[in-house]
Amino acid sequence: MSSDPKSQAALKTALTEAARLTDAALESLLPLPAGYHARAQEAMRYAVFAGGKRLRPFLVLASSALFDVPQGRALRVGAAIEALHTYSLVHDDLPCMDDDDLRRGQPTTHKKFDEATAVLAGDALLTLAFEILADPATHPSAEVRCQLVALLARAGGSEGMIGGQMMDIDAPNQSHGPDEVILLQRMKTGALFEFACEAGAILGQRGPEDRERLRGYARDFGLAFQITDDLIDETSTAEAAGKAVGKDKDQGKATLVSIYGVDGARDQAEALARSAQDAVAIYGPAAAPLEALPWYLIGRES
Amino acid sequence: MSSDPKSQAALKTALTEAARLTDAALESLLPLPAGYHARAQEAMRYAVFAGGKRLRPFLVLASSALFDVPQGRALRVGAAIEALHTYSLVHDDLPCMDDDDLRRGQPTTHKKFDEATAVLAGDALLTLAFEILADPATHPSAEVRCQLVALLARAGGSEGMIGGQMMDIDAPNQSHGPDEVILLQRMKTGALFEFACEAGAILGQRGPEDRERLRGYARDFGLAFQITDDLIDETSTAEAAGKAVGKDKDQGKATLVSIYGVDGARDQAEALARSAQDAVAIYGPAAAPLEALPWYLIGRES
Repeated sequence: MSSDPKSQAALKTALTEAARLTDAALESLLPLPAGYHARAQEAMRYAVFAGGKRLRPFLVLASSALFDVPQGRALRVGAAIEALHTYSLVHDDLPCMDDDDLRRGQPTTHKKFDEATAVLAGDALLTLAFEILADPATHPSAEVRCQLVALLARAGGSEGMIGGQMMDIDAPNQSHGPDEVILLQRMKTGALFEFACEAGAILGQRGPEDRERLRGYARDFGLAFQITDDLIDETSTAEAAGKAVGKDKDQGKATLVSIYGVDGARDQAEALARSAQDAVAIYGPAAAPLEALPWYLIGRES
Repeated sequence: MSSDPKSQAALKTALTEAARLTDAALESLLPLPAGYHARAQEAMRYAVFAGGKRLRPFLVLASSALFDVPQGRALRVGAAIEALHTYSLVHDDLPCMDDDDLRRGQPTTHKKFDEATAVLAGDALLTLAFEILADPATHPSAEVRCQLVALLARAGGSEGMIGGQMMDIDAPNQSHGPDEVILLQRMKTGALFEFACEAGAILGQRGPEDRERLRGYARDFGLAFQITDDLIDETSTAEAAGKAVGKDKDQGKATLVSIYGVDGARDQAEALARSAQDAVAIYGPAAAPLEALPWYLIGRES
């Protein structure tokens, strides 16, 4: 069983609502541009409000809903992850990295402002993520807040997202097989998905079993998500995708699509979506959005 | 009264010992390069161990010593600040920012590696700073750890260090008077000094009076430090300073030296050093290193 149209419609509503709430939270948490240094804060806001699915905040909200976490707390954690995710996009787009002029059809931050401002705005978004988490408004328990800080730092650090980006930059120089491609994905994008899903259990002060189950869910759907990204990169047009496509192939990078072929990769994405869905079914009706999400993600076209 | 030769000799010994202990702490806290992403971690270590006075960790150790804070805790906070300080140097040296090829006589990180690796290594050092602070080994009280995370994030963020760097980059386009020059310094370098000094009082779980006193100390000596930097930039040779000099003048940036002249700036640095010394004299003999430090800093030649 995949996901029925009704669940998909409900999920779309939930995604839209989560994005709206996240944007409101970010609006109030991002500093207002003022003073001689206003340019950095304008660039922070430009990058954050350039669009985006707010998928990671949605995951925090959805996992928090399993454990009756007050929504305001989940939204702060979601805003922190989105700030960190946005910084990674701003830095990855820089000329010395992926050198992208467009993101979601808009000029990237260094094109809209300049490179120095983009570096600083990225640095400031990363820093802000931790400031948000450490604030007592995020959770009354300082132990919980410290766990969130430590886990986000690990997920976003040199053994997580940054390590994945480093590995990705070096990828054309390495002959990666499937294990390395999966490792790269798990570090570069998976670590943050895992944190977003685990965050609900942390905010809900649940034990290791729930935390590990949600991490497992994130691992499966995260890989399915990446395979879908690679399928879009392989088969879509730039117009439909709203971004440059075919870059991995041009750069000679191995992906699960180049290794297993389009059909093989599609089968694998479906198997992973099913596994993710099964992992959270135990939580009953509250898990419906998390169950529907993997199917939604592997069905998208951009 | 300035500082006598005996105090200065004792301070030099204390600075050397603090640097040794800080390097040992950083050695154990920085990740060991391994795997496909090892290059990022090699660059982190290269940047951190390229030298440096370890002045900020010294400040944490010296302020912690006023309140009987176990040295191991102070060293972790010192290592976190040094990681954050190092990231700021790595990013500031980038071609799109200050475009420096040398730092402390050695190739800057992007010259030794490449720009992408330098951006990522900087990001990872910033992230690591918060991971270190949030770890229970830093302090048994999670409240204390959260305060450290929140304050470091604010000191290093868009209203602190990053805002100061943004303002500095824009400085040649602005006609700054003394107030703006002082504001820039206070944001760009002062905020981190203030955090380093306040950290001892936070680790010692002291009240607002001690915290404010140590911030005041940091404000005064931080400005004295910056004036001395500008004096070196104005009057020294690149060989003696171990870095490029005369850049501010070349870029038409206002400094307190360009505004008040060499003698006026030197007088001001001395008055600030005296004020800083007076602020901490209340703590008795334990404050000796903090009392001697401003005189040492304004007497240096590089």
